[in-house]
Amino acid sequence: MSAPQPMVELWRGGLLESTHAGHAVIWGPGGIEAAWGDPSTVIFPRSSCKMIQALPLIETGAADAVGLTEAHLALACASHQGEARHVRLASDWLTSIGLSEPDLRCGSHEPYDHAERNRLIKNDESPCQLHNNCSGKHCGFLTVTRHIGAGPEYIEIDHPLQHAIRAATEETTGEAVAGWGIDGCSAPNFAVSVAGLARAMQAFAAASGSGGVRHRAMHRLARAMATYPELVAGEGEATTELMQAMGGRVALKYGAEAVFTAILPEKQLGIALKIADGGKRASETAIATLLVRAGVLDRDHPVAKSYLKAIQWNRRHIAAAGLVSAPGFPG
Amino acid sequence: MSAPQPMVELWRGGLLESTHAGHAVIWGPGGIEAAWGDPSTVIFPRSSCKMIQALPLIETGAADAVGLTEAHLALACASHQGEARHVRLASDWLTSIGLSEPDLRCGSHEPYDHAERNRLIKNDESPCQLHNNCSGKHCGFLTVTRHIGAGPEYIEIDHPLQHAIRAATEETTGEAVAGWGIDGCSAPNFAVSVAGLARAMQAFAAASGSGGVRHRAMHRLARAMATYPELVAGEGEATTELMQAMGGRVALKYGAEAVFTAILPEKQLGIALKIADGGKRASETAIATLLVRAGVLDRDHPVAKSYLKAIQWNRRHIAAAGLVSAPGFPG
Repeated sequence: MSAPQPMVELWRGGLLESTHAGHAVIWGPGGIEAAWGDPSTVIFPRSSCKMIQALPLIETGAADAVGLTEAHLALACASHQGEARHVRLASDWLTSIGLSEPDLRCGSHEPYDHAERNRLIKNDESPCQLHNNCSGKHCGFLTVTRHIGAGPEYIEIDHPLQHAIRAATEETTGEAVAGWGIDGCSAPNFAVSVAGLARAMQAFAAASGSGGVRHRAMHRLARAMATYPELVAGEGEATTELMQAMGGRVALKYGAEAVFTAILPEKQLGIALKIADGGKRASETAIATLLVRAGVLDRDHPVAKSYLKAIQWNRRHIAAAGLVSAPGFPG
Repeated sequence: MSAPQPMVELWRGGLLESTHAGHAVIWGPGGIEAAWGDPSTVIFPRSSCKMIQALPLIETGAADAVGLTEAHLALACASHQGEARHVRLASDWLTSIGLSEPDLRCGSHEPYDHAERNRLIKNDESPCQLHNNCSGKHCGFLTVTRHIGAGPEYIEIDHPLQHAIRAATEETTGEAVAGWGIDGCSAPNFAVSVAGLARAMQAFAAASGSGGVRHRAMHRLARAMATYPELVAGEGEATTELMQAMGGRVALKYGAEAVFTAILPEKQLGIALKIADGGKRASETAIATLLVRAGVLDRDHPVAKSYLKAIQWNRRHIAAAGLVSAPGFPG
């Protein structure tokens, strides 16, 4: 196993302050087109594989049976900020299938969105499970569970839904899962290689709306994500801002511990990357760099520039400190 | 230059998820006693060197001229959470020297402390410069500036205060500074090696209250930090919790981008470490590991255990994921 490759550097006052290394793969129609670090590194995709976890939602017929829209499908693939619109969409979704918040198994956390956070604080309200960044995924899980008549504990590893997700993971990545762990939202997360994850993303990129069940499901999910970037993450998030900067041409997804996946239909490419230390900021700079390299992100777009050279928060920092991609990394 | 050494690992479901590498030095009376990674690596100490930056406050006579207490000295060395007690102490300090909040040059940010943050939100108040985690350091800077009759722009690199800090840095680390950058609070921060920073911490550890001006100043600052751990950081912070767990025997300080320093008077040891990727969580696990190794932290203390194996936030995580120090690192 090769070491992760230095990818992103933080400079301050002309001196190197911190560095991030990682693994990345670009998968094309003929296999690996480019790789950095070790493509065989086993990772937890975390939320970066939510489009794979959403495949049973379409393939079982559950989504169409209850008339889910593209917005619902985008939310099923989301790690959202808990903005009012995210919470409302998830809540209405549950109501429409005869369920409610206590049926979720994702737990709750303070919403990342400051407007909604501040509203809760001002009203002395606690966050609920709908605020959990994974609540859309769990709405999808419940929709499948209800459709196939399975038991309510849909996050158990032996639940039929998780069996279906495991199968979809192995079929799209082309490899047996290396193991599984419990994700932040209490659901299982299957471990795969960086190359396998990129291969799965390429399958999404190559899928058309006129293929078989799997291909049509992939096509719908990737299109839903690219069409509703504001539902897949939220304001200020790289996932959303970079998708918006690319105008619906690419579906992008962040996963905890610095994983990023990208689906590039017009290029028939899939991308997966993992920053070894789990540093989110570095994964954002790295994915922006790879999207520029792949020809789908304009390096002069203000959003692209902000992630290619992420600046810090304080007033005199702008000239003094910047996150920049390393010279050896494709720029 | 050797590479940083793997130090801290995040495991999930029995698989390695993320890794952190770094540099660390334990300096004793005879020089380097132990080192990991490359002791000569140049780093920005960031806030981990606030006790060095506070030396002019005592050595110029400014602290005694205005009757500062040990609590004030602890706050001068602090990266505080912006708790009500921190804000009040800083505010009263400024008043006592005839100055006020607008004289600070640290800028403002939302306080890390949730009680104070929520109070501001509920009252539609904005955070002020007193909430800045560095406001105590800046109160100290203003106290020196006023005492020596220098100009109000005390954060300029050519200000007499910054000259004095640079000299104190070079004298305590035993090396010429490698450069400087602007810290998060707009003040200069001088770059030194990890070994030099550990050497400076050893000088603090060896200083007695009966030595010369420099020794007495070092002794007072280290004692103030160890006596008031809750002022040096705040509730829930590793700096505070680990100092409390060691019962005043050690002065500890975190610096942004994953730097930690420790002053161990009874062992005559100084410690400095830097996690190369800037990951705070890893620096906490690493410093706890080194404090256990040095014989000042009981590995079975609940606080020690929580940092030696830091767990994540969600309900089913506890069994599933943990930050643990790597086998090769002193455990």
